[in-house]
Amino acid sequence: MSEHGKTPVTVLGLGAMGTALVEALLAAGHPVTAWNRTASRAEGVAAKGATVASTVTEALAANEIVIACLLDYDSVHEVLDPAAAGLAGRQLINLTNGTPGQAREMGAWAEELGADYLDGGIMAVPPMIGTPAAFIFYSGSGGVLGRARMALDTFGGVNYLGADPGLAPLYDLALLSGMYGNFIGVIQAYTLVGSAGVKASEFAPLLRGWMEAMNGFLDRSAEQIDSGDYTNDVVSNIAMQAAAFPNLAKAAAEQGVSAELLAPLQSLMDRRVAAGHGAEDLVGVIEILKK
Amino acid sequence: MSEHGKTPVTVLGLGAMGTALVEALLAAGHPVTAWNRTASRAEGVAAKGATVASTVTEALAANEIVIACLLDYDSVHEVLDPAAAGLAGRQLINLTNGTPGQAREMGAWAEELGADYLDGGIMAVPPMIGTPAAFIFYSGSGGVLGRARMALDTFGGVNYLGADPGLAPLYDLALLSGMYGNFIGVIQAYTLVGSAGVKASEFAPLLRGWMEAMNGFLDRSAEQIDSGDYTNDVVSNIAMQAAAFPNLAKAAAEQGVSAELLAPLQSLMDRRVAAGHGAEDLVGVIEILKK
Repeated sequence: MSEHGKTPVTVLGLGAMGTALVEALLAAGHPVTAWNRTASRAEGVAAKGATVASTVTEALAANEIVIACLLDYDSVHEVLDPAAAGLAGRQLINLTNGTPGQAREMGAWAEELGADYLDGGIMAVPPMIGTPAAFIFYSGSGGVLGRARMALDTFGGVNYLGADPGLAPLYDLALLSGMYGNFIGVIQAYTLVGSAGVKASEFAPLLRGWMEAMNGFLDRSAEQIDSGDYTNDVVSNIAMQAAAFPNLAKAAAEQGVSAELLAPLQSLMDRRVAAGHGAEDLVGVIEILKK
Repeated sequence: MSEHGKTPVTVLGLGAMGTALVEALLAAGHPVTAWNRTASRAEGVAAKGATVASTVTEALAANEIVIACLLDYDSVHEVLDPAAAGLAGRQLINLTNGTPGQAREMGAWAEELGADYLDGGIMAVPPMIGTPAAFIFYSGSGGVLGRARMALDTFGGVNYLGADPGLAPLYDLALLSGMYGNFIGVIQAYTLVGSAGVKASEFAPLLRGWMEAMNGFLDRSAEQIDSGDYTNDVVSNIAMQAAAFPNLAKAAAEQGVSAELLAPLQSLMDRRVAAGHGAEDLVGVIEILKK
């Protein structure tokens, strides 16, 4: 604790996200020691009150709580490996984007060096940090979360998922998958209507209402997945959908645009039908994805 | 007009959707003449008051307004071609699923035979017909829409798009693309968290909130598409996203599940970056889809 009761924090990495984290900490009164490979990028946060460390070893020595926010997990190792002795007794919070496997490896490595490890997946872009719109998934050591909580609260909502460090990146990537699926649908819709000269902004209200209605199926799909019962009752079954799906590609071809983003779903539906599940719901394709 | 003021209508095709249409018409007091290739499927609507025609010619002769709801456009031609003489003076409303090109061809063909043509895309599953949740895109002859309006209102909301018969199927397929994109995102998210033993129903509330937030980007994307200006300001640019995207496939592989549904988006992003647009927004990939 610093004199005024705010946890001092070390931040490694001053890209757009790392800088946003430092600024949120400084704004809330936390003393911050910052390090970046290219030292000139630290000038902005230094002007706002951060102490700039000239080496990683110095940055690790400065504070017990150390947040890493670098390009990828390889970068984290490149930065920390040469200074590994300084990790003993540290609370390492890694907010770098990566995979569950990378997080588990990093957690085991850090603990072997005597550090407690918490992994995080930031569900926000840098300008959202410190606003109510941002939230972060955490997994790994609950003790780290407890000790760093006041500092972490300055970034946005805290969602702790459990002791497996892989859970935060897994949830992060699951939501990103949802985002990219939403993007695929939206961009394909705009592409199709645009091919007939319809402005995207004219179509947007209709599309938004429709996409909002689609989210109404999320819970029913979840029930089906959890029960493994894909019995079709209300909507058209997967065989009917697989038979009508080629119209999407045909229409795109007629209109001179691409439907490439939806192609793998046709293949997936066809395989599910071929496996004898044509009378069931579309949701059953998850059984193929799980294999 | 029938004696009691309700427009009499002929319906060709008594699959699940055709039957739902007939039932909505009967429930609202419209006299209905129904035809189906397999006559036994007409028994249900006959019991509810529909007159069953034994031939297509008889069905066409019965009423001026004729609704076709068959498997596909080839089926519509198979059914109507041999009875084409009976189309003269008819108001043909085709609610069969197809492509814009098929709708334009069907419209030209019908008008050559002396029929007025309206195409429709039903945005509902059969149980929704006649409820406020259902709506139908129409395009083609506005005159047909005017004359059949009272009957069409019984199905759900009416959204008339213009004289080009291809517009209704185009809008229909654009929204379906949105739906399938949403599905891709949702099913991939459930697949990923499920690989770590997380129940879909446990993850659903988080996913729903996230997907709802994603719809907040629809309008901004539309502005960018309409202006052709994909300047990146707030979110991570496409080069950064293309560089992080492989984590989705890597995480899936680590967890033993498939990420095949998202693969084409990686390719699309990579091509956009290679074309020199790495510093712009993801939305710019639409320029490749439009080619």
